[in-house]
Amino acid sequence: MFKLIAEENGARTGELKTAHGTIRTPAFIPVATKATVKTLNNEELIETRTDTIIANAFHLYITAFEAIRRAGGLHNFMNWKEKIFTDSGGFQIIRKDFRFKITENGIEYRDLKNGRKETYTPELCMKIQNELDSDVAMVLDHCPPHNATREEIIEATNRTTRWAERSKEAHNPGRKQQLFAIIQGGTDPKLREKNTHELTKIEFDGYAIGGLSIGEPKELMQQTLNHTTPLLPSEKPRYLMGVGSTRELLNAIATGIDIFDSTYPTRNARHASITTRDKRINITRQRYRNDQRPLEEDCTCYTCQHHTRAYLHHLFKQKEPLAQRLATIHNIHHTQRLMHEIQTAIEEGWFQKLREEILQEELRNTSRRP
Amino acid sequence: MFKLIAEENGARTGELKTAHGTIRTPAFIPVATKATVKTLNNEELIETRTDTIIANAFHLYITAFEAIRRAGGLHNFMNWKEKIFTDSGGFQIIRKDFRFKITENGIEYRDLKNGRKETYTPELCMKIQNELDSDVAMVLDHCPPHNATREEIIEATNRTTRWAERSKEAHNPGRKQQLFAIIQGGTDPKLREKNTHELTKIEFDGYAIGGLSIGEPKELMQQTLNHTTPLLPSEKPRYLMGVGSTRELLNAIATGIDIFDSTYPTRNARHASITTRDKRINITRQRYRNDQRPLEEDCTCYTCQHHTRAYLHHLFKQKEPLAQRLATIHNIHHTQRLMHEIQTAIEEGWFQKLREEILQEELRNTSRRP
Repeated sequence: MFKLIAEENGARTGELKTAHGTIRTPAFIPVATKATVKTLNNEELIETRTDTIIANAFHLYITAFEAIRRAGGLHNFMNWKEKIFTDSGGFQIIRKDFRFKITENGIEYRDLKNGRKETYTPELCMKIQNELDSDVAMVLDHCPPHNATREEIIEATNRTTRWAERSKEAHNPGRKQQLFAIIQGGTDPKLREKNTHELTKIEFDGYAIGGLSIGEPKELMQQTLNHTTPLLPSEKPRYLMGVGSTRELLNAIATGIDIFDSTYPTRNARHASITTRDKRINITRQRYRNDQRPLEEDCTCYTCQHHTRAYLHHLFKQKEPLAQRLATIHNIHHTQRLMHEIQTAIEEGWFQKLREEILQEELRNTSRRP
Repeated sequence: MFKLIAEENGARTGELKTAHGTIRTPAFIPVATKATVKTLNNEELIETRTDTIIANAFHLYITAFEAIRRAGGLHNFMNWKEKIFTDSGGFQIIRKDFRFKITENGIEYRDLKNGRKETYTPELCMKIQNELDSDVAMVLDHCPPHNATREEIIEATNRTTRWAERSKEAHNPGRKQQLFAIIQGGTDPKLREKNTHELTKIEFDGYAIGGLSIGEPKELMQQTLNHTTPLLPSEKPRYLMGVGSTRELLNAIATGIDIFDSTYPTRNARHASITTRDKRINITRQRYRNDQRPLEEDCTCYTCQHHTRAYLHHLFKQKEPLAQRLATIHNIHHTQRLMHEIQTAIEEGWFQKLREEILQEELRNTSRRP
């Protein structure tokens, strides 16, 4: 299902075939936790050159599961004709509310509507994603916080393996849904190695690296990636969860990552933080008040083609809903344009040059920032 | 500039020529107080068949005046190529903050940025609207609250006349901007008559009825309209400010009103209240949770063509920004479709029949509501 097109010093470009078409990699996947990429409609997403989104199985299970089932799956429910990943939701359950409790059976949580205690098991997680009918499902994993003790990380990593086995067992591939595993192990090379070994032995359609970009120092994340990515089978897609800044994308791709998801462009946009080639700008700053230029000079996104910085500044200052939408369009479009450029660069063998160029430009502008 | 096409028992359909093209009447104008119809972009507005919006001169003066001036006017600032009305803002200043004080010279207010006392005079109001370069400007009026004493209403009405004279004097018609007067007088027929007489003597390009739909009983508003509208010159456009529900539109058009503006469809939409032909529905109600139908069966709006009630229910329940946008598209589209139908009905002589039909249908559904 995954076909490599070219490699350059470990960086890869390829194609992942799914039930709803092919995803060219390296790919960036915007986050649609609750069956919508915040502020955008489907056509706007397509215009940003997005062809894959990732929704959250747990969130949709507790909010709209019956409606999605009756619609015949998530594609119909949100009328999105392109590719959908679904995250298992294990990470979000644990992060959002510490009243949740992890047992060997699954994640215990309290249903807010009826007050009952429920358990989110690997089997239930597979059943839900099967009904959502996403193109790629993720196993239920146990992601420990970055400051967990070594014992906690070991326990979580072993549980991740056992849950992955149960997920694989419970998964119904009838609907042409692919199943990806999630590798844990904190920033410990030995644990990452062990977990990778165990999970690749079970055999999944792809492998994600979880438990990074959750608060650990950037250098530790990069070291862990340098070590872990090459351990993953080269014939399968490799997915780094939760990464989306230009610098991190470039560095992770250099280690051989193919797929990313992150709220980075969308969340920043909603806080008026605009990504441009060489820096991020906060459009609410006074200096943009009368600025008649687009957000980014050579950008072809809807926002840059139609509106000025002054207009966006005004909309943000007045808390007008259109502000966040226009900024989201630009930020996602910017990231997708970068991914396209990287795909071509790897194919043509100038990715390392591109990466150094962008990183140095960024560095110059960061150090120059007032 | 205004051409009558047909009349039916006092109801009129016509054409108002402006610097940015022709407005077919009866016309409904969505509100874009701060240079954006809340949640929509320009293309979406056009898709709802909206060709005119109304912005607020005072709001834009205190938030983005310099940026708009540098952009070369409001059309450029928001990149809207169709017609723009600007309201003077007198009504909003008085309603929003009671620290404002009315003197004969104008409306005194405190600038929130520098703390200075400023006076919003008829002359300043004209200068601002001239720079905004809207197609139709409104005079600065003094709109008393609906529960004002008779003395207060008399004073406000007389001041409205004096300010209208100053507005006309100060108005620079060089930019092909039309100037409409606003008639006050509360719900007192004699005062309305007097104010109408005084304002029509000054001669404006159109006449608005202000000071209605501000909290007075519906019957009083209708009586005032029945009395006032026919007093207005038939060769000039007649504009009822602040009205937008189906019932009120139909009844006001029956008295001979040509133009309306209101936050009714947009504000309702943001509160999940959806207008359909025969009733309003609140899409957050449980009964719509799994409803796979569009908001309105035969509606051609983007929302009804692409999404189900169940999806909208979900988006509203989860407070997703897309919810308010999709609802706003439907509600404005619904109102514009009604206006188009009314235009045809008046031209073909079946407006009274249409009006009775819709009002009775609405009545049946309202009395049946659980």
